[in-house]
Order: sequence, then structure tokens, then C-alpha cells
Amino acid sequence: MEKPEEVITKFGAQPLTEELRAKVGHRFMYDIFFAHRDFDKALKEGFVIVSGRGPSRRMHIGHLALFSFVRFLQEKFNVRVFIPFSDDEKLLTRRGLSYEEVLKMDYENLLDILAIGFDLEKTEIMIDLINLKQEVYNLAVRAARLLTTSTVKAAYGFTDETNIGAMFYPAMQIAHILWPTVATGKRALVVIGADQDVFVKLARDVAEKLDLKKPAALLGSFLPGLTGEKMSSSKPETAIYTTDSYEEVKRKIWNAFTGGRETAALQRQFGGNPEVCVVEKWLRVLFGIDVRRRCRSGKILCGECKKLLLEKMWKMLEEHQKKREKVKPIAEKIIKRVPRS
Amino acid sequence: MEKPEEVITKFGAQPLTEELRAKVGHRFMYDIFFAHRDFDKALKEGFVIVSGRGPSRRMHIGHLALFSFVRFLQEKFNVRVFIPFSDDEKLLTRRGLSYEEVLKMDYENLLDILAIGFDLEKTEIMIDLINLKQEVYNLAVRAARLLTTSTVKAAYGFTDETNIGAMFYPAMQIAHILWPTVATGKRALVVIGADQDVFVKLARDVAEKLDLKKPAALLGSFLPGLTGEKMSSSKPETAIYTTDSYEEVKRKIWNAFTGGRETAALQRQFGGNPEVCVVEKWLRVLFGIDVRRRCRSGKILCGECKKLLLEKMWKMLEEHQKKREKVKPIAEKIIKRVPRS
Repeated sequence: MEKPEEVITKFGAQPLTEELRAKVGHRFMYDIFFAHRDFDKALKEGFVIVSGRGPSRRMHIGHLALFSFVRFLQEKFNVRVFIPFSDDEKLLTRRGLSYEEVLKMDYENLLDILAIGFDLEKTEIMIDLINLKQEVYNLAVRAARLLTTSTVKAAYGFTDETNIGAMFYPAMQIAHILWPTVATGKRALVVIGADQDVFVKLARDVAEKLDLKKPAALLGSFLPGLTGEKMSSSKPETAIYTTDSYEEVKRKIWNAFTGGRETAALQRQFGGNPEVCVVEKWLRVLFGIDVRRRCRSGKILCGECKKLLLEKMWKMLEEHQKKREKVKPIAEKIIKRVPRS
Repeated sequence: MEKPEEVITKFGAQPLTEELRAKVGHRFMYDIFFAHRDFDKALKEGFVIVSGRGPSRRMHIGHLALFSFVRFLQEKFNVRVFIPFSDDEKLLTRRGLSYEEVLKMDYENLLDILAIGFDLEKTEIMIDLINLKQEVYNLAVRAARLLTTSTVKAAYGFTDETNIGAMFYPAMQIAHILWPTVATGKRALVVIGADQDVFVKLARDVAEKLDLKKPAALLGSFLPGLTGEKMSSSKPETAIYTTDSYEEVKRKIWNAFTGGRETAALQRQFGGNPEVCVVEKWLRVLFGIDVRRRCRSGKILCGECKKLLLEKMWKMLEEHQKKREKVKPIAEKIIKRVPRS
């Protein structure tokens, strides 16, 4: 899709109402999420959350923020969370990536997710290449029966040169989304980027055919990267990674794209432009600090904002990195089941 | 392929030599199997056997004979046997078949296979929808990476209307064949109909790319059905099913296609035609009884051959059905793991 809003204008998602936003009571409901599917029903009936992870070498602050929000929902609504890792998809779609590299990524990402502090009594982490559930595979087979090659080619942009594993993977993705509903009878709530809405729609179609409650979704558009580009696991300057050192965080924030004037004097006189400023957005969305008025009036300069962001960011990250160390025994217990082949 | 021999003349399989036949010392090496791939290497280096089952409502005497031969090989060469059930493929390729029906087929077929009397210390039965091994799924993912949609379309005759599960299944089939090699380091020996050779070839290609020993194969063409057609799980008169009653066996054998003359008098005078006779073939292949000379010379009539076949068949079947009852507790232990979804 061209623009995120098109999930509403073209694809039938609903805009978030003030009522729904208030029921959650988290600033991401204003600053990240803007649309939903059946979230009202989910809140009314009770739900389970599905929040998947396509493992990458490093997770960044955007991923962390999303999972922290999921953790917030878990606590607020006292619900189960299912976190499937699509490491099989990674292996299937990234040429040149080795099996061992993917397993390493699983481990690194698992540390970050465990460090978030989910209630492990109510959280299930399933890594497709490590602890795939028989029930999930079976559900994928049942979903696959309902999806022709041509349907998947159209939805995912695949061709005859796509390998048969990637071609099948959408069925696994749908099984990830629908399994919690099969297991609990409750509606699944998918917390996801609006650009992934097409896959939510596919899962809803399959749910209907399998006579399951259609998954609900919260659809968001995530933080811009520090450089103004999209945050990426492979472009270090766009994002703060969860394992970055203080020096790295400092350098990246110092080089961030802002809405500042050429000189401090000009900015004091005419004010900055917070609308285009990444630092402003990060301060507000991640830390709830709103500098927009002070920026526009020239009362705060870019250096001060960056310093503030660095301070808040490092405080959070240092804490996260400590927790990341602490959860290693739990992660190793999960990962050691890894098969040789 | 048009004719079974084409696996040799066109597709590079080797004819079985007298030496290889003698090393096994079973009449199926003369009457069923006629070609192989690397069977000489397998015998030299040691091997593990893979003999899969695509579950059906009822197994017939041809299936039973094949698994009995595998059991013979297990004992003779003291080797491990891996029996994967492709119930997922069944579900994916048979429209209208329900999940519950497939699980019922698993159970029924499992009883027949357990009744064969495999050495369970050296035999592993894996039913894809019941006790899929993580390692096998992972190997399927690694195989799938190497197979484009167009390759699989060509080998299996699939189209864009094929569902994505069926499209992926060849990777699972290859994983079934290659997993024992990954697990043991030994070459896999696939005991299979010559019409399945194209899949063995695909598995050998993938093995080479994954740096695994290429699977060996014994390629056979199986018994003709009682009516002269191919034996089929869905055409009762073509085959003797493992659960048939004495009356059913009797009726089917009595109606079998023979090489007899119109009258007993003519047959006594001119002899019968054992070359086209199904009863003769069954007597010889299944029970080692050769009536060809007596038939040609008119010394034995069709009624006598049928009586002999019925006697031998029922003796074997009665025994099998008793064993089938006895193994129920083992089968139930395997099958009870069945997931709800």
C-alpha cells in the first residue's frame, strides 16, 4: 500500500476512536496506533495477544517499544501473550544466511524479549526451528489447504522462482496468528505495523473458513529512524540497537535529523520545526516528553533535546542490558533444545 | 513415465544384478524389484531403511508385502527402519477429506504396520500430524530453500491452483528420506515403486546440495490387482485388504482374472496361460508357489489355483488380523498424542 491511512480508506480497517484509546490508556494509542480491526470486540469479549518476531541480528528500540507495549497490555488486561519467532521464514527468504546464523539471531532476540519482563506464566514463546508445536504445524497444513499458489503469489508478490518454503510460509504465519484462538477459544489480537495488514486480512479470511474467531488487530506506523529513513536492523545509523554502547548511542543521537535552524541564534529568534524532527518524535513517543511548544518558540535548542534524549535513552538501555544478562539462563534453557540438523 | 523399465533406460537407475539379488536372498528381489540406485554402495557401507506410508482407509496385501520385505531386510542386515506417514500430504491433496478421517486412517494403517512385527528398538514411526520431529521440519525448510516453485511444478505436475501446502510437501518428503542420514550418518535406502523414482531423484539432488550421502533406492513394480487393474485402496475388487473377512477374500479370489480356457476340458487338453494370470502371479510372488509348468500342461485348473491361493492368503491374513488386535495398545500410545487442532 502507498500510505498507512489506506488500511482505513481502502482496506476496511477502522480508525481508533477516543473511547478505545482511553480504554487502553497508553500514549502509543495516540502516537503509534491509528487503526484497528475488531479491537472493540476483543476488548469486550476478552482476547489473547499474538506478537511475532522475525529474528534479526540485532533488535532496535522500535522493536523494544512494541514489545513493551504488548507487555503493558498483558498487565493491564491480564491476558496471555503468544510470541512466535519466524526464523524459518528468515532462512527461507534470505539467501546466503546460514542455519547457524539464524539460530544465533534467535538467541539474541530471545534475550531482548525476555528482558522486557513478560509474565512467563502467561507467555508462550515458540521458535519455529526450535520448539515448533505440533498443533501449529497441523493448523498451518489446514490453512495451506485453503490457499492456492496464485493467491499467495498475489498477496506476497511471489513468482515461480520463489522457493516452495517461502511459498508455504504464509500458512505458518496464519497458524501463528490463529493457534492461540484454537487453543483458548479467545479472539487473537495482533499488534502489528499497518504495512502488515494484508497478512492480517488473509488470516481473517482463513479464520472464517475454519470457523474460528477472526483475529483482531491494532495497526500502527512506527517511529521514523534517526536519519529520517525507516529504522532498520541493517543500517546502524537509523536506529539504536538494544546492545549499543553509550558511545554508539551518543554518536547516533548526535547525528540525528532534527528540525533545527542553521544557527542557534536563528533558532532562538524564529524557533525550530518540530514537525519534521526525529528527536522530538522520539522524545515524545518513547518518553512522553513534549518539547514542541518550547521548540517552536525557540526556547529549547537541538543540542538540549539531543542531550535529553540521550539521557533518557541510555537510562532505559542500561537497565535493559542488565536485564538482558539476567535472563540468559532462561534463554539458554529454551534454545538448548535446538536440533542438530 | 510410460514403462517401469524407463527408470533404467531413460533415468539412470541400474538394473539389479544377480549378485545383488543373491546378497538379499528374497524372492521379491526377482519378482518385484528390478532396478536400484546405489544399492551396492548401501550394502557395502551399511544403511538405514526409509519406507513411508501415505495413509489410506485400508491397507491391502501389496502394502503388507512391501512392509514385510522391509522387515525381512531389517532382520537380515540388522538395520534401523524409519517409517514416516505422510498424512499431511493426504490432507493437502484430497479435497473433502476431513482432518478426523485422516487421523482415523493413521490409526488403521499403524495397526497394520505394527502387526508386521518390526523390531521396535530399531524402528521409528513418525506420523507428520501426530509426532512430527522438529529435526525433520527443519530439514524440510532447508530442502525447501533449494527447490523453486517451478521445479516442483514440473516434477509433480502442479499449477498455480495447487494449494501452498501441497506445493511445500515435496520438501517434507525429501526430509523424510534424508533425515535418517542426518541422524545416523548412514546412507538411506528407500524401498519404493519405480513410478516414485522421480522423487528419489529429487531427494538425491537435494542431498548432494546439503552435502549428505545420496539416498539409495530399490525400485520395484508391484503386484497386479486381482481384476487385472492396479490394486487400489478405493476399488475393493482389485485387492485383498488386511481387514477383509474370509467371505470377502473368497469372493474376490473366485472372481479374479486368470489365464484359463473356456472349459475345464479345453484347459486339460491345451493347458492354461499363466503369463497373463493374476492368480499365478500372486501364488508365486506372495507365497513362492510356482504352478506355471502344471498350468501350461493342463495338469492344474483355475479352480485348484484359486483354492490354493485362498488357503494361503487366509492363513496369512488370519494371523495378521490377530496380530493387528494385539498391537492396539502400542498404536494407541502413539496416536493419543494427537493434538486437537
